[in-house]
Amino acid sequence: MRKLYITLAAIFLCSVVSAQFAGIQRGQKPVPLPEGFKPSSTNTFLARYPAVNAETREAIFKVVAPTAQKVQVDLAGKKYDMTKDTSGVWTCTSDPQVVGFHYYAILIDGVAVMDRNSEVFFGSNWESSGIEIPEGPEGDYYRFNKDIPHGQVRSIHYWSDINGLERHINVYVPAEYEANPNKKYPVLYLVHGWGEDENGWSVQGHMANIMDGLIEAGKAEPMIVVMPSGDIKTNSDVREASGNVTEIFAKDLVPYIDKTFRTKTDRENRAMAGLSRGGFQTTMTVFANMDMFAWMGTFSGFFVRGDAVDAFNGVFKDADAFNSKMNLFFISTGTEERNPKDQVLELKEHGINNIVFHESQGTAHEWLTWRRALNEFAPLLFK
Amino acid sequence: MRKLYITLAAIFLCSVVSAQFAGIQRGQKPVPLPEGFKPSSTNTFLARYPAVNAETREAIFKVVAPTAQKVQVDLAGKKYDMTKDTSGVWTCTSDPQVVGFHYYAILIDGVAVMDRNSEVFFGSNWESSGIEIPEGPEGDYYRFNKDIPHGQVRSIHYWSDINGLERHINVYVPAEYEANPNKKYPVLYLVHGWGEDENGWSVQGHMANIMDGLIEAGKAEPMIVVMPSGDIKTNSDVREASGNVTEIFAKDLVPYIDKTFRTKTDRENRAMAGLSRGGFQTTMTVFANMDMFAWMGTFSGFFVRGDAVDAFNGVFKDADAFNSKMNLFFISTGTEERNPKDQVLELKEHGINNIVFHESQGTAHEWLTWRRALNEFAPLLFK
Repeated sequence: MRKLYITLAAIFLCSVVSAQFAGIQRGQKPVPLPEGFKPSSTNTFLARYPAVNAETREAIFKVVAPTAQKVQVDLAGKKYDMTKDTSGVWTCTSDPQVVGFHYYAILIDGVAVMDRNSEVFFGSNWESSGIEIPEGPEGDYYRFNKDIPHGQVRSIHYWSDINGLERHINVYVPAEYEANPNKKYPVLYLVHGWGEDENGWSVQGHMANIMDGLIEAGKAEPMIVVMPSGDIKTNSDVREASGNVTEIFAKDLVPYIDKTFRTKTDRENRAMAGLSRGGFQTTMTVFANMDMFAWMGTFSGFFVRGDAVDAFNGVFKDADAFNSKMNLFFISTGTEERNPKDQVLELKEHGINNIVFHESQGTAHEWLTWRRALNEFAPLLFK
Repeated sequence: MRKLYITLAAIFLCSVVSAQFAGIQRGQKPVPLPEGFKPSSTNTFLARYPAVNAETREAIFKVVAPTAQKVQVDLAGKKYDMTKDTSGVWTCTSDPQVVGFHYYAILIDGVAVMDRNSEVFFGSNWESSGIEIPEGPEGDYYRFNKDIPHGQVRSIHYWSDINGLERHINVYVPAEYEANPNKKYPVLYLVHGWGEDENGWSVQGHMANIMDGLIEAGKAEPMIVVMPSGDIKTNSDVREASGNVTEIFAKDLVPYIDKTFRTKTDRENRAMAGLSRGGFQTTMTVFANMDMFAWMGTFSGFFVRGDAVDAFNGVFKDADAFNSKMNLFFISTGTEERNPKDQVLELKEHGINNIVFHESQGTAHEWLTWRRALNEFAPLLFK
């Protein structure tokens, strides 16, 4: 046993060395943070910084870089100069931030890189760092609730004949799915935006927490939610074959889901929604396949300026025909971004009567807008 | 429609700007790579570098860092100086590498950071970059096979009463699981090593491809594989409560799995294995709960030096008792790392007759060793 303990001691020594880097020693109290600050929920294991303050909405960053000449944090469009202490640790405190999730980068001598204290999130077509400025109780709907049952997010690779490559999707099934082996469920296809990927909704968006809460409260129907890639991450060998995503969604993905899950396969039980570019992909996919979808939503993704009645190859021109086909056309936006309310008004005046328009107060083109949109949208489906 | 196209043009312009950074323009042919090189399978979308050569086993790295004074690649224990061209792009070519997965870092003026062209992998308790040097056909067993059915890796958060926090696990279910709503399955608990996390086996290890292939070929029983955290990534609010993982495995995790999945719940249908520190956690968990597990494995994780018969509180002393309890004690190692073959021999001579010892030829303490170990171990279970 003595020799066993020597081996174990070596293992634990490794742990301690690594943990020290992160600002905490195993078995000891963590390094105290300034009053009011807590580690961001987006930090890696043991990392004390970035630390965020729920009251002031500031964030403190620390970077260990003794050999660098200049270190900055690039957050929400502003570069913050960091100051170095005698041990080579650089620090800065941000201005107050909007609550919710924000990407950021560290600049080491002008080179934008990720902070190794942060979990990594795919945004703007590359891996990025992130912080989460906590909301008060009004943000509970997207946080983990230990007192309710939880669904599962399933990571699945399937083969697409149309673009000839392996594709990765995430599929949420509600908590009750396992316990009801003969029950069939309606399906929502939910697409990420430009520069993000099929993990965005479940990681940055906390969609599973949102759906778990809505379903447990009886506000939303139990449903399957399919989160495909809008062709951001693909197989490295087949870069060229990813242009035709709407065709892949309609002809490869829907049949695969209906074959693999217990789904209701009629159009009344199939919805599609997406954020930003995913909203555009939703309009392209649904309007080209009105026999497949009866519910749809665009979150910060209704890309029409003026002349909405003429848009999308005239799909809105015959309002009665559109109304009879589509049970719901949900359009949402943050109040601090480009707002399609004039186009919505135009469509309503033209006679499109299935639009629900949602404005997220005080938020921009960001995840808090889209978490709220999903929370408003999902309860309207399949009813 | 004209205005719609203007909006779309803006979206695609963003795509092009980002894609240019990655070395490819949308709709154009990708930048050609040197003869014999392909993008690493671990790269992010559109990233051409790092590029790897299956023949020479070299890797070429490129980093855009016009403002840096010195840029290096830190790979497999060696730092490679990169050279800068007139556009500020730094390049180097590595020595030949062992096939399989390797972590690496970029040093910007001496500061170790991640390469933004690489997917991110959790190792050594922080996020890292990775490359994969491709194996020949002998590596097919861990690659995606489009011609066979695929299981699902399910991402699940559950509440642990013992350490009072939300825990994340991944659970693999075989392809046939959905189609057999009344069938119950045996369960393998599979643990990662030091500094990695519950995603290690499914991401770095490609365990789903391995299990899919073994099950489809009839070599392994269809089984559920549960991949918990050995307490690397935890809830940021409750750092201190993660010491007692073996108790959590036995008392929180196993009941949760048996409640949530269609499992066979007797010890003959429950196995546990782990790599490196996860192998140590396996021995600690199984030997303290022999009524729960009848199959076990340690991959590069049999941490005993000499006196093996006396180790683990004397669990091996009564060989007959151990043999009657345990159907399989699988011990594996790479030939290029510390090798427990003397201890295995000692245990066998002592009368422990359920040991299967596997050596991975030419590999060290690395993922190729562990992919091979799982491929050898899984077919022996539940038979």
